[in-house]
Amino acid sequence: MSSSLGRSFVVADRADIAAFVIEETAFEGVKEIGETVSEDLLLVTGKKAEQVKTLEEVNSDKAVLVCTLGKSQYLDSLFEEGLLDRNDLQGKREVFLLAVVDCALTDKKLLVIAGSDKRGTIYGMFHLSKLCGVSPLVYFGDAMPEKKEELEIEIGSEGPVFVSKEPSVYYRGFFINDEWPAFGNWATDTFGGINAKCYRKVFELLLRLNGNYMWPAMWNSNFSEEGPGIESARLADTLGVIMGTSHHEPLFRAGNEWQQQFRNYGDDNTWSFMTNGDAITRFWEDGVDRNKEFESVITIGMRGEADSKLLPEDATMADNIEVVKKAILAQDKILREKIYDDFTKVPRMLAIYKEVEDYYYGDDTCQGLKDWDELKDVIFLLSDDNHGNLRNLPTESERNHPGGYGMYYHFDYHGAPISYEWTNCNRLTKTWEQMSQAYEAGVTKMWIVNVGDLKEMEYPLSFFMDLAYDFDSWGKNGLNRVKEYVYSWINNQFGERLTAPQKDEMFRVLEGYTRYNALRTPETMNQMIYHPVHFREAERILKEVREILSVADKLHDELKDEALLTYESMIYYAAAASLNMIIAWILTGFNHNLAAKGSLYANSFIDEIEERIALDHKLVDAFHSIAGGKWNHCLSSAHTGFRSWDDREWSYPVVQKVAPLTVAKAMVSFRGQDRYHLGAYWQDMAPLVNKCFCSAETKEVLLDVDTRGKVGFNYEVKLDSDVLSVENGKGHVALSEAVRRTVVFTLNRKAIEPGKEYIVKGRVDISFDNGQKTYVDLEFTVKLCSDDLRKCNVVDANTQYCVIDAKDFAENKHISENGFEVVEYLGREGSAIKSFPAMKTYDKAAEAPFVSYEVNADEDGEYDVRFYLMTRNPSFKGGRLKFFYSVNDSAPEAAYAVSDHYYTEWQDESWAQGVLRGGRNVEYSISLKKGKNTLHIYAGEPGVILEKILVKKSGYSTPDSYLL
Amino acid sequence: MSSSLGRSFVVADRADIAAFVIEETAFEGVKEIGETVSEDLLLVTGKKAEQVKTLEEVNSDKAVLVCTLGKSQYLDSLFEEGLLDRNDLQGKREVFLLAVVDCALTDKKLLVIAGSDKRGTIYGMFHLSKLCGVSPLVYFGDAMPEKKEELEIEIGSEGPVFVSKEPSVYYRGFFINDEWPAFGNWATDTFGGINAKCYRKVFELLLRLNGNYMWPAMWNSNFSEEGPGIESARLADTLGVIMGTSHHEPLFRAGNEWQQQFRNYGDDNTWSFMTNGDAITRFWEDGVDRNKEFESVITIGMRGEADSKLLPEDATMADNIEVVKKAILAQDKILREKIYDDFTKVPRMLAIYKEVEDYYYGDDTCQGLKDWDELKDVIFLLSDDNHGNLRNLPTESERNHPGGYGMYYHFDYHGAPISYEWTNCNRLTKTWEQMSQAYEAGVTKMWIVNVGDLKEMEYPLSFFMDLAYDFDSWGKNGLNRVKEYVYSWINNQFGERLTAPQKDEMFRVLEGYTRYNALRTPETMNQMIYHPVHFREAERILKEVREILSVADKLHDELKDEALLTYESMIYYAAAASLNMIIAWILTGFNHNLAAKGSLYANSFIDEIEERIALDHKLVDAFHSIAGGKWNHCLSSAHTGFRSWDDREWSYPVVQKVAPLTVAKAMVSFRGQDRYHLGAYWQDMAPLVNKCFCSAETKEVLLDVDTRGKVGFNYEVKLDSDVLSVENGKGHVALSEAVRRTVVFTLNRKAIEPGKEYIVKGRVDISFDNGQKTYVDLEFTVKLCSDDLRKCNVVDANTQYCVIDAKDFAENKHISENGFEVVEYLGREGSAIKSFPAMKTYDKAAEAPFVSYEVNADEDGEYDVRFYLMTRNPSFKGGRLKFFYSVNDSAPEAAYAVSDHYYTEWQDESWAQGVLRGGRNVEYSISLKKGKNTLHIYAGEPGVILEKILVKKSGYSTPDSYLL
Repeated sequence: MSSSLGRSFVVADRADIAAFVIEETAFEGVKEIGETVSEDLLLVTGKKAEQVKTLEEVNSDKAVLVCTLGKSQYLDSLFEEGLLDRNDLQGKREVFLLAVVDCALTDKKLLVIAGSDKRGTIYGMFHLSKLCGVSPLVYFGDAMPEKKEELEIEIGSEGPVFVSKEPSVYYRGFFINDEWPAFGNWATDTFGGINAKCYRKVFELLLRLNGNYMWPAMWNSNFSEEGPGIESARLADTLGVIMGTSHHEPLFRAGNEWQQQFRNYGDDNTWSFMTNGDAITRFWEDGVDRNKEFESVITIGMRGEADSKLLPEDATMADNIEVVKKAILAQDKILREKIYDDFTKVPRMLAIYKEVEDYYYGDDTCQGLKDWDELKDVIFLLSDDNHGNLRNLPTESERNHPGGYGMYYHFDYHGAPISYEWTNCNRLTKTWEQMSQAYEAGVTKMWIVNVGDLKEMEYPLSFFMDLAYDFDSWGKNGLNRVKEYVYSWINNQFGERLTAPQKDEMFRVLEGYTRYNALRTPETMNQMIYHPVHFREAERILKEVREILSVADKLHDELKDEALLTYESMIYYAAAASLNMIIAWILTGFNHNLAAKGSLYANSFIDEIEERIALDHKLVDAFHSIAGGKWNHCLSSAHTGFRSWDDREWSYPVVQKVAPLTVAKAMVSFRGQDRYHLGAYWQDMAPLVNKCFCSAETKEVLLDVDTRGKVGFNYEVKLDSDVLSVENGKGHVALSEAVRRTVVFTLNRKAIEPGKEYIVKGRVDISFDNGQKTYVDLEFTVKLCSDDLRKCNVVDANTQYCVIDAKDFAENKHISENGFEVVEYLGREGSAIKSFPAMKTYDKAAEAPFVSYEVNADEDGEYDVRFYLMTRNPSFKGGRLKFFYSVNDSAPEAAYAVSDHYYTEWQDESWAQGVLRGGRNVEYSISLKKGKNTLHIYAGEPGVILEKILVKKSGYSTPDSYLL
Repeated sequence: MSSSLGRSFVVADRADIAAFVIEETAFEGVKEIGETVSEDLLLVTGKKAEQVKTLEEVNSDKAVLVCTLGKSQYLDSLFEEGLLDRNDLQGKREVFLLAVVDCALTDKKLLVIAGSDKRGTIYGMFHLSKLCGVSPLVYFGDAMPEKKEELEIEIGSEGPVFVSKEPSVYYRGFFINDEWPAFGNWATDTFGGINAKCYRKVFELLLRLNGNYMWPAMWNSNFSEEGPGIESARLADTLGVIMGTSHHEPLFRAGNEWQQQFRNYGDDNTWSFMTNGDAITRFWEDGVDRNKEFESVITIGMRGEADSKLLPEDATMADNIEVVKKAILAQDKILREKIYDDFTKVPRMLAIYKEVEDYYYGDDTCQGLKDWDELKDVIFLLSDDNHGNLRNLPTESERNHPGGYGMYYHFDYHGAPISYEWTNCNRLTKTWEQMSQAYEAGVTKMWIVNVGDLKEMEYPLSFFMDLAYDFDSWGKNGLNRVKEYVYSWINNQFGERLTAPQKDEMFRVLEGYTRYNALRTPETMNQMIYHPVHFREAERILKEVREILSVADKLHDELKDEALLTYESMIYYAAAASLNMIIAWILTGFNHNLAAKGSLYANSFIDEIEERIALDHKLVDAFHSIAGGKWNHCLSSAHTGFRSWDDREWSYPVVQKVAPLTVAKAMVSFRGQDRYHLGAYWQDMAPLVNKCFCSAETKEVLLDVDTRGKVGFNYEVKLDSDVLSVENGKGHVALSEAVRRTVVFTLNRKAIEPGKEYIVKGRVDISFDNGQKTYVDLEFTVKLCSDDLRKCNVVDANTQYCVIDAKDFAENKHISENGFEVVEYLGREGSAIKSFPAMKTYDKAAEAPFVSYEVNADEDGEYDVRFYLMTRNPSFKGGRLKFFYSVNDSAPEAAYAVSDHYYTEWQDESWAQGVLRGGRNVEYSISLKKGKNTLHIYAGEPGVILEKILVKKSGYSTPDSYLL
């Protein structure tokens, strides 16, 4: 028999399935995961792969040899035989190779899965699962593989052996947090607690996602004591999961352990290193003794209890730094004594979270922690602002810190300004954009993401883990590849069960619901978010939300069996429940707005609002009963109408009901305008005025004819010009038939000469059924520059302003390949532009790349330019998200997205508003000349992401709205 | 046959009724009113008195001789016979005598009704009607007299002849105004227009009320052109009604005549004496020619059209005065030419209304109109602020103005800050207090009151007219006689048809509904007026309003036939419709307040609110159908939920509906406190605290246990002390049974030692039906100084403040009979004190009368005293409603009810708020010593009316409320 390498391997055929050969010498974790993968294959083929210790025991004609460098004689033989190359694994971390071999060891066809280390081998095995069609989300996403009686895989390499890359980020994983009531109750129901049985599933998910690191739940749990006992920690170690504790839980000790155990160390329960240092030190010592044998990254430092500050608000910076240093010295002393004296070998992590960031930098009075030699080997774990926006990143000089940098990121948060815990509010593009920037800034040692209750986070978590594992593919080269990623993710979950149109629809649902949840989290939605009148904003959102929901419902109707369950488990309920409440709130906005005006049309929204609230209950209940109740509790977090940072005051929409007046009361208004008219009156003879036909893309103008009273009426619209066409120009409004009629005005293009301004006058005659009469005068301005006004960017006496999408630049000037790029799905609603490389800073406009736009003004004068930016934080201490702009030939001016006293914390209202709205804008005065102008925008500091530009007449105020 | 005088006269017996003897020489108006009184007697007796011209024609054994001095031979004979004394009438104005005579002229028993002049005779005839039990409101109030087959009257004098007094006020009457849609539609339906037929009824009412002067409706009417033609004016003259035109309609010309007639005078329709003076002069000349033969008071001066200013806002004072003077000179020229050159004989009136007040006073740059010699014989008609509060009154030196002063008062107004037109909002005590002050200030030449649509104003109008006719009885000696007046008014309308308890109830209804309508007019009521929480204000008001309404309903059930109709016509619907909407708004306040808190108890108010709105429609409709539809339209003005000065935006309450959460959410709160508790929580363990048992008259404290969610729960209250007793201490709250339970805590007096402070701790244990549990801690402070805390006026760390009713003074120091008096029914809710004589001003506290109060403080320190004053205006230009206060032995300080830039017009927000609220308060810092203190309040300027005094700890803010 000759030795050779192949590229394909029949895992199973009609006869049988390949056995798993895992030697006695293999890691226990490898053996256990071998069993798991064997179960995966059973799901696909219906046949259980036997796990044996020697090739001799294999009954089939094919086998999978699972082995680890240094732990396998078979592997050594293969190296010796020259079939495989030891250098593919030797000295590497978490790497595996796949090879299909005919070899001297056996006459069987062998698939070799060989790891450079335990995790390498495990990743290799799960890679086999994936090749066989098993998603990492097989359990947590109910992504059941397609059945295949015969299963042949391609190992997918370019050469004869597939060798995985070393992971991009050293420590990568997630944090289960804010886990009550959803995850906690679910785990209790399913596993009897947040115990080792539960973690067995969680660890498996982590490993399937090529992760290696995690922080356990700690709200009311004690990971190292409740497995039972140390079982969870031991299991992690067995499976190759490196455990940490969260940012404020030093030396293996869970947050609530101190209050449970302080009596073992004295009578004083104070968590103060100043007054109770000895007891706390002994408490830490025992923690180290308990967990030191397991692979861990050890959190050091100290914060107050329950994630609070250590010292009172009035303590000085020096006082604070002093007490933290004192605690760290005590911790390091324990670690040196009990683990290893050489700290380059002891993975320690200090989280630079909230106020610790201040201590990290220090101030004029005292050196910060970052320059303290004691910490040179520690991983500095930076963090976002809890809402997915990075804070300070390492400067170039800081990047050589020997311990390296990590990032604590959030997909879920419990705290200020408002929690988001119910379902997924994360968009992949933002994760890509922010985490890529972190990577570029040297944050590569540790990525950990807070996934809340875990369930419904499968989608963004997959992306985060893939990015951390293979940054080259999805990060560095990931610009505008998110859509591709989502399609591949959909394929991984559904395989061939979806048609191509269904995949498009699935993409629309995923992209759509996450966009709206990110635009405003379900918790913070209320009836006042999308303006019920201005720009017809709420109407527009409502239309799209209804469309997305109907696509989601259509898929729900079409899918069957496993595909339906997968869809329900990870997508449908998250999307439908989110979209449903958006609809309820928007309708409530209409209801309240119209009720305040006394329009009886307000009442027409009540039934649907109440149905939507009922549906909210039903959707949550339905989700809790899918898969035989497998996910009971998982959507049970409070999720709507929060009035403060926590869920205590959550509420549903409150509907309002208008009582009709006994009299004749008509109310006429242009849709999109606050002003309404009750009929000509000695103090109000002025017509309703509409100039929309002069702005942007107006296709039609609506005129609503409402009633406040019981007396019905006929209305009739008359115009003095044929420039406009009228639909529904006559009708009867009455309580018993319709309390609103809507007249539709459209342009009669044939009657219009471009460039010419028309003033069209009209009147609505109103004849009440009781014989009274009144009328409302109308006045329209119509002026078309061309057939496509939008491109003209006209600001004149009619339009008052124009809005330009940042992507619609006239010129995009790069400097040696660096410059602005359009990033799809990055804006609050559409694309946005960002300068790359992301960390590159330009101090002068003259040296910076730029984009430019045309704006046409009707007169020389003062105007305002408003930049619509995505909410981001400065990347450096003292940064203000600076960029530059200039008009025509004027010298560039600096613009700043945030003030000079901006502070990334809940005390800063501008930060909080930015987080809630997902965007912020800044406005500057500019001079325009009559005719065509060119507006230039130059790159400046990192973090500037521009979605829209508004140019308006100085003195004109745009009406309130959420999006403009 | 011997001549003699008697005191009683049989008007009718079983045989027949006395004939009316009115000589051929009598005034036509006397003859016509003779017919009217004869109809009155028919209503009483069922027999029609014949009207004959001579005694010889009388068939009966009894006759009523109706005659006027100088117009009757019979009367001359009686003088000659010596039976009557010519001096009882000669030289007197509007006086009549009644005498029962056996005389030489005839063998019949004669009742002589003799007038000094036409009106005297007419008043005498209507006096007979009243003696026969016919109310002046027989038509307008459907006050049908009791039937009596035999009718004997007493003439009611002390001597043998009854001689009436001369009327107190020279011109006295009312103005029908703001007459659409109610009066206008009613008159059109009933009489075919606001024409002579209509005015026949109105004039009759005026004369029955002893009035002599009126302004006709002019919103869209033209009194002298639409009778038809001059008929209405001619009728007035015939009946002795002196006509005027309103304050801005000079020289007999109605407001809208100019626009109808300007073409007779030229092409220019501008109402500007500057640019169109000639045409306007000719227009006035024709007006004088048209009306000069009728008895009138001629309005002079000039305002803009539609009751606006004449010149633009930027005109100077001198410009304005100049143009007014020019117009007046032109008017006077016409009057001298066409009527009489001696202006002491031509009654002219200039209204000092709105901006004319400024011209009246002038300023540093120019002399005001008041000192212009041209106007020395003109009546200066002063006015209130349109809301029943007098403005400037004549100073002592001004009172000798030869033309005299008048007052234009309002019971109804269309304008700023908000109109009150629907029903009666006037309380008699205020009318007494203000008009008495006017009289005291020399305003005795003319009283005219705007009665809006007239209907439902019968009650305050009767009082106004009686005050004007006989100021001695009801004005000068009227202090605290309003209740007596109301009972007499009730007697005049209902006679013996009511039992004594029913009269008490009728008084309660009249006093009650007018008090609440005055406290907040129906138009301006809304759900935010009475605070739904603080001081349990809305609850307290709701309770009394429900009680008054139930008394009104009870009377409605009990009364029958004529009495029922009288009640419905003047009292019941006005009261019930007003009270009904107050209830609806208060319930809506609870509904909104609880909805904002998410309490499902909010929903329990919806049904009644909707029923009340439906009842509002029904009550108006029912009123419109009483007496066979006689008063159709009369309650049709918009009347609720005004959002601006006019009725365009009127609205009904908008109800709110809360959707239950799916979860367990209890909500516990002390009634009267904003704070509520959702169960102990790591950020909110603080107990609910109640200190009410330390303040004022608290008898019980309520604790509401509400729910926001679907999951029911048991609660149980436990206390650590027997100082408090508990009712409803246990219970179950659930959507299906009760969404609120209320625990009642009362003092266990036996367990309390006065003067000792008890801190009672308690807990509400809450066990949800789903197994969850929570609790709320309670803490009460209990401290009783004595059994009647109120009298102690304690301000300590528990109470924080005390409120003292102004009437509860410890001392009331008069200075030679002048000083404060308690005036019943004058405060917003209760009595108030005012210094008399009303116009007496004290510049120094040392010379002023004062009242004093005891206040007990728990420590030396700074406190605030807040004076609750009725809304009034200064009586003199530049006045600030000054008064004085002092504490203990400190020197008196000045206090001011209004600021030094106070302006009695809609532009002044403090005036507008005062008008809307009916009260205002001012606050000053004081020092108190520990223990008992004495607070003195001294009289100062006229117009200071004090209802309550609040003393509080400095720095403590009282919660928002309408009444405190």
